[in-house]
Amino acid sequence: MTATPFHFELLATDGNSRAGIFHTPHGPIPTPVFAPVGTQATVKSITPAQLEEIGASLVLSNTYHLYLRPGDELVAEMGGLHRFMNWPHPILTDSGGFQVFSLNEMRKVDEEGVTFKSHIDGSMHRFTPEKSIAIQENLGADIIMAFDECADPNNREYIIAAMERTHRWLERCIAAKKRSEQALFGIVQGGIDPILRAQSAEFVSNMDLPGVAIGGLSVGETKEEMYQILDVLHPILPKDKPRYLMGVGAPEDLINGILRGVDIFDCVLPTRLARHSAALTFEGQINILNKIHARDPKPISENCGCYTCQNFSRAYIRHLMMAKEMLGGTLLSIHNIYTLEEIARQSRAAILEGRFSSYAASFLANYKTR
Amino acid sequence: MTATPFHFELLATDGNSRAGIFHTPHGPIPTPVFAPVGTQATVKSITPAQLEEIGASLVLSNTYHLYLRPGDELVAEMGGLHRFMNWPHPILTDSGGFQVFSLNEMRKVDEEGVTFKSHIDGSMHRFTPEKSIAIQENLGADIIMAFDECADPNNREYIIAAMERTHRWLERCIAAKKRSEQALFGIVQGGIDPILRAQSAEFVSNMDLPGVAIGGLSVGETKEEMYQILDVLHPILPKDKPRYLMGVGAPEDLINGILRGVDIFDCVLPTRLARHSAALTFEGQINILNKIHARDPKPISENCGCYTCQNFSRAYIRHLMMAKEMLGGTLLSIHNIYTLEEIARQSRAAILEGRFSSYAASFLANYKTR
Repeated sequence: MTATPFHFELLATDGNSRAGIFHTPHGPIPTPVFAPVGTQATVKSITPAQLEEIGASLVLSNTYHLYLRPGDELVAEMGGLHRFMNWPHPILTDSGGFQVFSLNEMRKVDEEGVTFKSHIDGSMHRFTPEKSIAIQENLGADIIMAFDECADPNNREYIIAAMERTHRWLERCIAAKKRSEQALFGIVQGGIDPILRAQSAEFVSNMDLPGVAIGGLSVGETKEEMYQILDVLHPILPKDKPRYLMGVGAPEDLINGILRGVDIFDCVLPTRLARHSAALTFEGQINILNKIHARDPKPISENCGCYTCQNFSRAYIRHLMMAKEMLGGTLLSIHNIYTLEEIARQSRAAILEGRFSSYAASFLANYKTR
Repeated sequence: MTATPFHFELLATDGNSRAGIFHTPHGPIPTPVFAPVGTQATVKSITPAQLEEIGASLVLSNTYHLYLRPGDELVAEMGGLHRFMNWPHPILTDSGGFQVFSLNEMRKVDEEGVTFKSHIDGSMHRFTPEKSIAIQENLGADIIMAFDECADPNNREYIIAAMERTHRWLERCIAAKKRSEQALFGIVQGGIDPILRAQSAEFVSNMDLPGVAIGGLSVGETKEEMYQILDVLHPILPKDKPRYLMGVGAPEDLINGILRGVDIFDCVLPTRLARHSAALTFEGQINILNKIHARDPKPISENCGCYTCQNFSRAYIRHLMMAKEMLGGTLLSIHNIYTLEEIARQSRAAILEGRFSSYAASFLANYKTR
């Protein structure tokens, strides 16, 4: 498994923070990086050309959704996900595990795998570690994920069982994997128990895969609990591999994750907020429907370089959202993704210049969480 | 009214067809031209940058909708419609008349104007010729329309009354107009009666305005009846003014209109079809949801130069529409508008080279109407 076309170049560290480049067959990913989510092979309401203009380098897509529709075999027949969605840059797919556990009331787990019901038509399906890898090989992303079980964070006995099963499933994923131009990341589980997390981190690190993912966070625990786990993991995880904190991407979590050595983030937050008329800024969220924006000729953020802020007023975007015009969601999505990319880019520059702790402190002091 | 910054440069005629340039304060409009519709100050699901890439030169926006929301005074305060929607190129607004008559069951017409109910909140409003001009002056489009009454095409008595009132209202619009950097077009009415149409065309032509619009067509009459009226109007309308056929824009109508001397078209068709999963091609419409497209790696049109056809397969666009992803409508809108612009551009080139009748014949022979 060590002979892969993947290589993580660690350019600088600053405290526990890291700046690097993860090289993939579809180009380099400068880290820290935020990956926007294209659940159904599209980052909602955005064209790939707009995503390039935003400066995104890595896009995440969901195995569960694409397996159900349009089907991973169809995607393979159309030349794979890069060609299908016209994103010639790096792509990451998750394993389907998280969706199977979070979208399905009817799931049934056994040692072999998980049986679940489609959220689209109610039909029954089964994922195993081998099946998840086969689907991800059909999709053809650069980075693929081991099939894992994300347990209820409040049930310690289940967390242990799920973690141990996740480890056994990781070994099966490694054995099942055939394509050399895809990097398989193992996933650290263990809930919010520092001892279990340490145990899982050691197990996954020992597999010597090209990267390590941290799963099962941002699923109901407090932010302090999440940060504490990241502190526990930092010294255990291999320094020369990228670390991917799954499903996390609020501005303050980006900063706090980077402070604790995380390299890769992803989250649906920017596009989901956009559909709910919310804009991310370096000072906090604003709701564009608020009446104070009705006659405001200023952009969402005066110092923002995104297409939306360079060209449109708050008054116009508010009008679009009030009138339920699709362009409103597109313009807010562009701005929100750009904001997260910009936080990652500024963090990276600060790490490279050895001033990230002051950058982070100043960011967190200015940023109002809700 | 003759001293305006507007000038129609007639470059070539070919039979009754015309190729020219209508010069406006926001740049030249090469004619024949198709104007996409941005009802609520946005061409649905498209950014102005995408619209520029498509090659659109003129965008239409609706006075009725913008008066109700966000309000023409707000738009004026934000710097006018060009600045508000970030379209620095030519804009045309209609008078609100058509919407008042078509969206309102509760309208009440008198000699002074029309009282109607808002489709948004049911509140009562009143448009007069003077009010329509005042709103359009607040919006600030380059081309504005006289307030007219579009009558039921099956009631001859009403058609005469409405036409005569439209003429009196045109005189009031001319008297009310204050801004010199806007071109007011009068509107020819008269239903499908050739004698009434000729009478209306003479009346409107005598006003010596910078352009003439043809209203009240494509409202239920047959295509043959529409084309017949255009044939009646051709010799009457001034040669040195642009002729705008309102609300018409199906591919075959573009060709047939250009054959009969029309210079400007507008229609919601391309974006409306897109929302209903239909793509326009030079051979007819296709429904992208059709199962035959599920595994089709080809673009919608193999010879099309639009962003959609240059980058995406039918299989991908079908997937987006099946999954109800917004990007599907955006990509189809880009393609559909591009197709109509391309028909206008190719027609213009053919007229300039004196071969439009053969171009039109070949287009109509290949194009399957539904």
